[in-house]
Amino acid sequence: MHRTVFFISDGTGITAESFGQSLLAQFDHITFDRRTLPYIDTPEKAQEVAHHIDTHCTETGIVPLVFSTIVDETIGKIIARAKAKHYDIFATFTKSLEQELHIHSAHSIGRKRQIDSNALYSERIGAVHYALNNDDGARTNHYDKADIILIGVSRCGKTPTCLYLAMQFGIRAANYPITEEDLEDFHLPEPLRAHRDKLFGLTIEAERLVAIRTERRANSRYSSLRQCNMEIAEVERLLTKERIPHIDTTHFSIEEISTRIIASAGIERRLK
Amino acid sequence: MHRTVFFISDGTGITAESFGQSLLAQFDHITFDRRTLPYIDTPEKAQEVAHHIDTHCTETGIVPLVFSTIVDETIGKIIARAKAKHYDIFATFTKSLEQELHIHSAHSIGRKRQIDSNALYSERIGAVHYALNNDDGARTNHYDKADIILIGVSRCGKTPTCLYLAMQFGIRAANYPITEEDLEDFHLPEPLRAHRDKLFGLTIEAERLVAIRTERRANSRYSSLRQCNMEIAEVERLLTKERIPHIDTTHFSIEEISTRIIASAGIERRLK
Repeated sequence: MHRTVFFISDGTGITAESFGQSLLAQFDHITFDRRTLPYIDTPEKAQEVAHHIDTHCTETGIVPLVFSTIVDETIGKIIARAKAKHYDIFATFTKSLEQELHIHSAHSIGRKRQIDSNALYSERIGAVHYALNNDDGARTNHYDKADIILIGVSRCGKTPTCLYLAMQFGIRAANYPITEEDLEDFHLPEPLRAHRDKLFGLTIEAERLVAIRTERRANSRYSSLRQCNMEIAEVERLLTKERIPHIDTTHFSIEEISTRIIASAGIERRLK
Repeated sequence: MHRTVFFISDGTGITAESFGQSLLAQFDHITFDRRTLPYIDTPEKAQEVAHHIDTHCTETGIVPLVFSTIVDETIGKIIARAKAKHYDIFATFTKSLEQELHIHSAHSIGRKRQIDSNALYSERIGAVHYALNNDDGARTNHYDKADIILIGVSRCGKTPTCLYLAMQFGIRAANYPITEEDLEDFHLPEPLRAHRDKLFGLTIEAERLVAIRTERRANSRYSSLRQCNMEIAEVERLLTKERIPHIDTTHFSIEEISTRIIASAGIERRLK
């Protein structure tokens, strides 16, 4: 079964997508054909979109779903007249919030922009550059400035997690790959010892690691099950021995790994 | 005026935050003290949270706001009993969606995880590594694999935008900094010429660039208003002359820059 879904916003469309996807994820057995239409911020563009939806509905004979986050009331009303089943966050909740807060909402587009004020922008970009400069053990002399240092075998998810922590939460995350040489003497690598309280381990199932490493270097020792098994087992022993908190990344998305680390390590976000 | 807000989820909490923040951004004059409580995925944790909210309400004498995305009905009901003004995406929309789709929702936690299936994970991580390897003009021999190549002066926002495009949408984005040397002969730098159709320019206001560069290297020629003005003017002339589409990043967040580039350049997302 197919159903067309439109995510419509007068801004980036990211909230409309996130809200719609979360709801749709509950419905198996239906294939959703998704289209995001961001920056529908004038009555003209709204009319065009409404016309497009009407045409789609007439041509297919199936009413599409619309998930929208439209702040401007005029634009919202134009979209709402289109032949679709509408789910609109703002129309649904704003009135109730106005009553609760005893205040009128601004009903203006681009409000979210304020969260990217200059100071926060710097914090965020600073964290992204921190992650880039302290990726993959490249430098170890800036760990005093780290909020967290991720450790684990090559390709267990450290780099994307550090970047996500930086981008989404402004957290300064470094990462250090535990290599075979590090495992030889079964001690914490020297550059990490002074920062034990910032260490967090990532582990992964061997089969998954083989698949990821194979994409990078097929039929190599690096991507062999034997090698992956060995590295993972030794890193896990090290993490346990040193009592370093850790999570298994195998079945988690980058978002899940990142938010679980924050919850588990109890670190503070710098962006709120 | 202060008001406490809880974002509560049985998953990462990212949708609850995004949904709540979008709504709250419409209300000026109120300072919201925000707390995100992710992974509230057992009745026990839910009871703890409900108790925490009740205590907060009693102690402060002010009813807090709760924005939640709770899939599990039992957990949702426990949270809903807490003394707060509740805004719950699932409770609000799921019944209507079930009727519209003639199907019951799964009501199970962690559904969103399916979007991070192995193939999509590879696509996403591949794009992140592509952005890292092709950042800042480091390599120019993989531009045939790029979906887009961002160009502009140093520190106009190219790197974080490329990383965001990769992480959020799986788009392979390279970036190339236009330097003074490049501007001398007023032509497109040689490595870019074969990829004209993939080029997208970022510009920025000089005052903003001065502020960003000053954080990196204060009181230098690099961060002087004169130098910033000159570089920006020349890059803008080049972009206009070569008819390369471009946007001014000054007043936009990374999310806005990224989604506007996608809309303007008409590139396809690889993650849906």
